[in-house]
Amino acid sequence: MSSSVAIQGFAGSFHELAAHHYFGSATTTRPCATFEELVRQVAGGSARHGLMAIENSIAGSILPNYTLLRKADLRITGEVYLRIRQHLLALPGQELAAIEEVHSHPMALLQCADFLGQHPWRLVETEDTGLSAQRIRESRRNGVAAVAGTRAAELFGLDILAADIHTEKQNYTRFLVLAKPEHAPEPEQPDKASLYFHAAHRQGSLAQVLVRIADLGINLSKLQSCPRPGSTWHYTFHADLEFDDPAQLAAALTAIGPVTEKVQVLGRYRRGVTH
Amino acid sequence: MSSSVAIQGFAGSFHELAAHHYFGSATTTRPCATFEELVRQVAGGSARHGLMAIENSIAGSILPNYTLLRKADLRITGEVYLRIRQHLLALPGQELAAIEEVHSHPMALLQCADFLGQHPWRLVETEDTGLSAQRIRESRRNGVAAVAGTRAAELFGLDILAADIHTEKQNYTRFLVLAKPEHAPEPEQPDKASLYFHAAHRQGSLAQVLVRIADLGINLSKLQSCPRPGSTWHYTFHADLEFDDPAQLAAALTAIGPVTEKVQVLGRYRRGVTH
Repeated sequence: MSSSVAIQGFAGSFHELAAHHYFGSATTTRPCATFEELVRQVAGGSARHGLMAIENSIAGSILPNYTLLRKADLRITGEVYLRIRQHLLALPGQELAAIEEVHSHPMALLQCADFLGQHPWRLVETEDTGLSAQRIRESRRNGVAAVAGTRAAELFGLDILAADIHTEKQNYTRFLVLAKPEHAPEPEQPDKASLYFHAAHRQGSLAQVLVRIADLGINLSKLQSCPRPGSTWHYTFHADLEFDDPAQLAAALTAIGPVTEKVQVLGRYRRGVTH
Repeated sequence: MSSSVAIQGFAGSFHELAAHHYFGSATTTRPCATFEELVRQVAGGSARHGLMAIENSIAGSILPNYTLLRKADLRITGEVYLRIRQHLLALPGQELAAIEEVHSHPMALLQCADFLGQHPWRLVETEDTGLSAQRIRESRRNGVAAVAGTRAAELFGLDILAADIHTEKQNYTRFLVLAKPEHAPEPEQPDKASLYFHAAHRQGSLAQVLVRIADLGINLSKLQSCPRPGSTWHYTFHADLEFDDPAQLAAALTAIGPVTEKVQVLGRYRRGVTH
């Protein structure tokens, strides 16, 4: 059993940065090409923890990751919020006018569409922001830039040719920290929980669930509907609940029992901070 | 002003099939490479109607399309449900053993991953299921198959080498019918409405919205949260409401006023049927 943290993406990616904020910068990360691979590494024991993006303040929920969470027997043990700042990176000494090609993850290219659209550059989609930066360093290619964060610039010795080139300046991503149940001890004083439930097949049952939660003084910070497996046009709901006292959560789980068909707590943890 | 219907995808696509079910098979469709282009064609008047996928019973909501709906000043005038059945198509006379390459839209390839994974075929991602079939016909290429529906087989004279190759047999897509407000007269007896709202910034306000809707005997058939533009970690909700009498909807809009910050009705229409 390694004590490393499985992340989606590679060195210099935003997942790595989020892992360093949460676990400290001495942490060993295990790069995964996909979210499926990340979950497999944690569930299979190759990594003790996982750190997985779940939603972005502009693009919204990463719906397939909710499905991965429901299918894997993992617990959410924490969360971390990261402000996403994209920069244009190239080998030291390069001028903006010399750039002909820009490489990055499609999402990063999209986030910078306004800036990139003002230049006659060829855009090349890659697997990862950090990997794009690393390849420029390793190939020593002139005329090529990457869209990535400051961490990639530091790690691969690239210059920032243009800073903060993302269109929407308030761009945050929320990451969940995952572990197998046996490596996820109850936190001392949790003030947040993630759960999913099927509302009972009666009109108004979702309203009843939410009223019972609200009546206990719990704040519903997120409600996400997802397709309910094995049924058509019925939904399962993922809910994030914020409370002051874990007793409120216990009371809520009891209260919603009669108006839900299935309730599963994915994790109790401390509310995350924004970096 | 054309009376045609803008669709996402090309001849032989599932969007075209859904358009034929809703408007009749004599309808002229206007293929669009993207959902953005579809909305532009309707908003700009190049097409009188649009037909746009909004959710799938397995993959869930197509979140970016909710954003397109909020930004465009269009009305939802109807809906149609389509069962998605994927087949392996090739030029007549081809044997399964002769196939080396399979072309289709990434989502269609994914839906057939189990079947495709049992063969040593090279998978090639394309823009569209119908277009993949058309290219096989036009290039008369042997050894190449497409994943697409029966409509593409008929249209381009291809054989079905393997039928119903999609993994999840209960696979349905819901499409919305769109028009500019001036081309969207009130239907005589609407029994469904789509709206979006911001819940007031108070704990329990979403619960209050849903209770007031349920208390009027209205069925909430869908609730989808999306990021709220210009704010971070606040959500806007898209809701589909089913009722017997339009007076219920009018009463609901009045009732939820005090517990919402903004309510916008995207359309009143008749519930769709499944084909």
